Amino acid sequence: YRYGLAEDEHQIGVVTGLAYTSVGGDLLQIEALRLPGKGRMKTTGKLGDVMKESIDAASSYVRSISPQLGVKPTKFEKWDMHVHVPDGATPKDGPSAGLAMVTSIVSVLTGIPVRKDIAMTGEVSLRGNAMPIGGLKEKLLAALRGGVKTVLIPKENEKDLAELPDNVKNGLEIIPVEHVSEVLKLALIREPVPIDWDEDAEEAAAQALAKGDSANAAAVAH
Amino acid sequence: YRYGLAEDEHQIGVVTGLAYTSVGGDLLQIEALRLPGKGRMKTTGKLGDVMKESIDAASSYVRSISPQLGVKPTKFEKWDMHVHVPDGATPKDGPSAGLAMVTSIVSVLTGIPVRKDIAMTGEVSLRGNAMPIGGLKEKLLAALRGGVKTVLIPKENEKDLAELPDNVKNGLEIIPVEHVSEVLKLALIREPVPIDWDEDAEEAAAQALAKGDSANAAAVAH
Amino acid sequence: YRYGLAEDEHQIGVVTGLAYTSVGGDLLQIEALRLPGKGRMKTTGKLGDVMKESIDAASSYVRSISPQLGVKPTKFEKWDMHVHVPDGATPKDGPSAGLAMVTSIVSVLTGIPVRKDIAMTGEVSLRGNAMPIGGLKEKLLAALRGGVKTVLIPKENEKDLAELPDNVKNGLEIIPVEHVSEVLKLALIREPVPIDWDEDAEEAAAQALAKGDSANAAAVAH
Amino acid sequence: YRYGLAEDEHQIGVVTGLAYTSVGGDLLQIEALRLPGKGRMKTTGKLGDVMKESIDAASSYVRSISPQLGVKPTKFEKWDMHVHVPDGATPKDGPSAGLAMVTSIVSVLTGIPVRKDIAMTGEVSLRGNAMPIGGLKEKLLAALRGGVKTVLIPKENEKDLAELPDNVKNGLEIIPVEHVSEVLKLALIREPVPIDWDEDAEEAAAQALAKGDSANAAAVAH
Amino acid sequence: YRYGLAEDEHQIGVVTGLAYTSVGGDLLQIEALRLPGKGRMKTTGKLGDVMKESIDAASSYVRSISPQLGVKPTKFEKWDMHVHVPDGATPKDGPSAGLAMVTSIVSVLTGIPVRKDIAMTGEVSLRGNAMPIGGLKEKLLAALRGGVKTVLIPKENEKDLAELPDNVKNGLEIIPVEHVSEVLKLALIREPVPIDWDEDAEEAAAQALAKGDSANAAAVAH
Amino acid sequence: YRYGLAEDEHQIGVVTGLAYTSVGGDLLQIEALRLPGKGRMKTTGKLGDVMKESIDAASSYVRSISPQLGVKPTKFEKWDMHVHVPDGATPKDGPSAGLAMVTSIVSVLTGIPVRKDIAMTGEVSLRGNAMPIGGLKEKLLAALRGGVKTVLIPKENEKDLAELPDNVKNGLEIIPVEHVSEVLKLALIREPVPIDWDEDAEEAAAQALAKGDSANAAAVAH
Ligand SMILES: [Ca+2]
Ligand SMILES: [Ca+2]
Ligand SMILES: [Ca+2]
Ligand SMILES: [Ca+2]
Ligand SMILES: [Ca+2]
Ligand SMILES: [Ca+2]
Ligand SMILES: [Ca+2]
Ligand SMILES: [Ca+2]
Ligand SMILES: [Ca+2]
Ligand SMILES: [Ca+2]
Ligand SMILES: [Ca+2]
Ligand SMILES: [Ca+2]
Repeated sequence: YRYGLAEDEHQIGVVTGLAYTSVGGDLLQIEALRLPGKGRMKTTGKLGDVMKESIDAASSYVRSISPQLGVKPTKFEKWDMHVHVPDGATPKDGPSAGLAMVTSIVSVLTGIPVRKDIAMTGEVSLRGNAMPIGGLKEKLLAALRGGVKTVLIPKENEKDLAELPDNVKNGLEIIPVEHVSEVLKLALIREPVPIDWDEDAEEAAAQALAKGDSANAAAVAH
Repeated sequence: YRYGLAEDEHQIGVVTGLAYTSVGGDLLQIEALRLPGKGRMKTTGKLGDVMKESIDAASSYVRSISPQLGVKPTKFEKWDMHVHVPDGATPKDGPSAGLAMVTSIVSVLTGIPVRKDIAMTGEVSLRGNAMPIGGLKEKLLAALRGGVKTVLIPKENEKDLAELPDNVKNGLEIIPVEHVSEVLKLALIREPVPIDWDEDAEEAAAQALAKGDSANAAAVAH
Repeated sequence: YRYGLAEDEHQIGVVTGLAYTSVGGDLLQIEALRLPGKGRMKTTGKLGDVMKESIDAASSYVRSISPQLGVKPTKFEKWDMHVHVPDGATPKDGPSAGLAMVTSIVSVLTGIPVRKDIAMTGEVSLRGNAMPIGGLKEKLLAALRGGVKTVLIPKENEKDLAELPDNVKNGLEIIPVEHVSEVLKLALIREPVPIDWDEDAEEAAAQALAKGDSANAAAVAH
Repeated sequence: YRYGLAEDEHQIGVVTGLAYTSVGGDLLQIEALRLPGKGRMKTTGKLGDVMKESIDAASSYVRSISPQLGVKPTKFEKWDMHVHVPDGATPKDGPSAGLAMVTSIVSVLTGIPVRKDIAMTGEVSLRGNAMPIGGLKEKLLAALRGGVKTVLIPKENEKDLAELPDNVKNGLEIIPVEHVSEVLKLALIREPVPIDWDEDAEEAAAQALAKGDSANAAAVAH
Repeated sequence: YRYGLAEDEHQIGVVTGLAYTSVGGDLLQIEALRLPGKGRMKTTGKLGDVMKESIDAASSYVRSISPQLGVKPTKFEKWDMHVHVPDGATPKDGPSAGLAMVTSIVSVLTGIPVRKDIAMTGEVSLRGNAMPIGGLKEKLLAALRGGVKTVLIPKENEKDLAELPDNVKNGLEIIPVEHVSEVLKLALIREPVPIDWDEDAEEAAAQALAKGDSANAAAVAH
Repeated sequence: YRYGLAEDEHQIGVVTGLAYTSVGGDLLQIEALRLPGKGRMKTTGKLGDVMKESIDAASSYVRSISPQLGVKPTKFEKWDMHVHVPDGATPKDGPSAGLAMVTSIVSVLTGIPVRKDIAMTGEVSLRGNAMPIGGLKEKLLAALRGGVKTVLIPKENEKDLAELPDNVKNGLEIIPVEHVSEVLKLALIREPVPIDWDEDAEEAAAQALAKGDSANAAAVAH
């Protein structure tokens, strides 16, 4: 018997990003947890302000599309989230793990595991657009060294592929993406099932419930 | 099927501002999101204190005119707002995106998209007045380079247009504005529909409801 | 149709203060807004700590006299206030806008507009006393240049008028004041109508209401 | 008609302390306000951390003796307090205004005015003991210059009176004190009327009330 | 008549610690107050971070043994605590007042006075263990000078007594202690009376009460 | 009679970690307490940001596996936690006490004591994986000196054992671990008993209870 999640469930919320430092590229393991709570977000791993903001942006974007992910927006106030990037002693910064942050958060919210042999790099906008990043060559070399099979990169970085050595281009499946929607299709092992969500109807139902009008509550929100 | 908003809805909350840096002018993409929440405002994108304050001022101004926008002032306590300015690694500061911030916030609040070929620059006062900005020439050059068709500038900057090269004046429709009201008329694809709002009547209705006096609640606030 | 307040209402909460910097005097436009909320005070405009504290003192003083202004003290927990001093990129500091802060806050609370051709300078104590300020000469020169007609100054600065050039003394109506009460009489376009306020009776009524004793609630507080 | 408190009421919450700076002694006007609120304490006047802590200590001490002052301890959660020390641009620090802070807070809580021709200096302990201060000579000179008639000093500073010039000793009534109780007797224009307070009985009454057991609530707490 | 606690009650919450500074040892008067409140802890007296943390540790330890002290753990949410170390202008730091902090907090919680002629030094662990401190010699010299009769020191510092001059060893009763339990037996004028406390039964009673099931509430928790 | 926990219970929440400083290895005593409260985490002992984050990660991981530990996730909002690392004056930092933090928190949550002759080192990921650390040799030497019998180290550090002197390898039982599950099996004196936990059923029961539907509440959650 083993505490914690089993090996295949282990992949829920775990995403491989790619870092670029003064001494070359590196793999970045991103871990997210969802806990019963009050809508709080905790981030750890000696993260710089820009990386913390990229988690904020990822989190807000995911909240904005939550009905498409099968998650009621009101659920967010009942959960805490924790995003951690080991190892804890190494400073990390920059916005380029945005797509990976989105994927990690979506995975823990939906409970859908992330494919294990995929890595990704790309800033994310508040609309889910994949935005260009720096250090593509070093990042892809690190992915190759790390045994990654598939790497998602921003479409706008496709032009930088020209300067890559052949062994990298042959050793990796490199897929340019424009939007989070493509990332989730490629990285999650199955697609989330959307739900209907109508803010005004939900609110009316909540008010009917508060007034003890349970018949109407059902009628309004059914 | 694509996660996130469709292309035309994409324009809700997205506004093009104009930045002026030591190396020239640049386009500034402003993105706002409205989420179910508790009245919190989050800002990201490595924004300086002055730009954050300009978002505070924009937000308060919009709250002050919310009935004219068709939005009950009490709704603000049920929503969170997130304003992001990519890219996340580039520091941004200054008050001159005030008009764009107002437009972005109004757009997400009302759900009315922003015209895509328009850009704007101008500080905003707490009364919605357009106030003069610096670097007009560099900003307009960047707008031209970026394919913008129409640029809104503060009326008080009209005098600076004299020193602009002809190709800029011919290549752009430059519209001087004095107040947010003109900006919204030009930038939103349709006008918001105002609602009646009487703070005292609303409060009386809320109190009647709290007392279980639902007949009176309807009568007072109808 | 124009968003925001009409021209004459525009004067609600807008007060002209006088600043004194290393390069001379300047006009300081102070803008206050009152919003439905929770008793929060927001201040923007790159204000230093001393100016922020002067807004705190002004706000507490106004709360302490609110029945004389026709405003129930308990209303403050239902409103947010925002005080902004454009332009947003210029640092401002010092306590000498205290009287102007009080006037601006009283104006938004009561909805009574401020006379447009008046300016004022003076620190305010927590009892509403007008306290002396520095840079009187430079401030009055700026008022004259700015088209101001009447300037309120602290009585204790009257002695500094001797060193003013005649054109300033002739071009401005300079009125020394000792207390906020005189400032409000001169700056507001009409006087507020006081209400009765008895803290203990109000509290008893609130408790009766909480207990469902609506008859008594009316009787106690009528 | 004058906004704010009338002249004699003006003395409620206003106490004269004595400061000691590198350029000599000075009078320190301390102003406190009590407002309907939620138990918050605000301090303004460019106060250093030690002076802010002395206000915290004064406030806690006063709360601890509130029944002796005729004030229910539970009232503190219904009021906000504001302590301000003009002028707002001059930094002030040190613990020696402790006795004056206590006196000012007691005055606003009880509504009993402070005698106008009295000044005081002395740190206060959390038990109300008067503790010794520095700069006695400079402070008493400032009191004399400022027209003060009576000065309260800590008993432990009595030994320092030997080095004072005769004109100071003759011009001022100097009263050494050991405890806040003596300060309040001398500085307030009348004595507060104590009330009975039994924490356990109050709590039982509050719980009975919460359970709708109003007969018992009265019986328990009568 | 005297405001504040009477002389013998004065000893509630007042404990003598021992400080060690670059200029020798000194007595440290620790004062605690318990006030009706909301579970807040305030600390004043220019305390460094390590001393503040030692108060946190002392407070948590005391909360963890509160039933043994006759105090329900739930009472802590109904009280505020204030720990002050005069004089307010002298910086103090270090963990060695831990045992004294525990004693002071226990005294105000239980209302049992602290013996007046006792002093103590020793860090405290989160389990109440007395941990070794530095500067023992200087501290004991200060205790002797200050008229203290009995000094409690950590057992682990017993070995340092060898280097003390005879007049100190003869002039003071020095008692080595291993745990807070010994400190409280020696320093409080009487022993607290423990109560039974069963967290689960208390919670069940609270829930029964919340459901209006007062018969069961009594039965469960009696 | 002794205040605090008895000697064998003393081991609840107390774990021996291993530190590595510029002057060699050292034992690190970690102490955790669980108190009735509101879900707050307090950390003391002059801990650096990385060590604080390692406590955050440990705490979130433990919350995520709480049903396996026999603890309802909702209980966390009813408790406060305090983690302290004496002595209070020595700065400590780094992520390598992660496994020890997890063990300490699990021990206080479950009330299961920690074996006294065991020490451990290892960073912990948000999934409970043991991650490699530095200074293994110095840490094991300190464990030997400190009388520790068994040391748990991360599997990934097994390769570093080659360079250890024989006396260390012979004097200590060194057990490489990959996951928290192995650590808890080895370090706790007995295994926790898991409970069933279904978030959705719990929520439904809570809502039925809130609606006064106690029959259904029992039925749903039985
Ligand atoms: Ca590493
Ligand atoms: Ca809708
Ligand atoms: Ca860029
Ligand atoms: Ca109205
Ligand atoms: Ca300017
Ligand atoms: Ca009254
Ligand atoms: Ca001055
Ligand atoms: Ca009692
Ligand atoms: Ca001293
Ligand atoms: Ca139990
Ligand atoms: Ca040590
Ligand atoms: Ca489930």
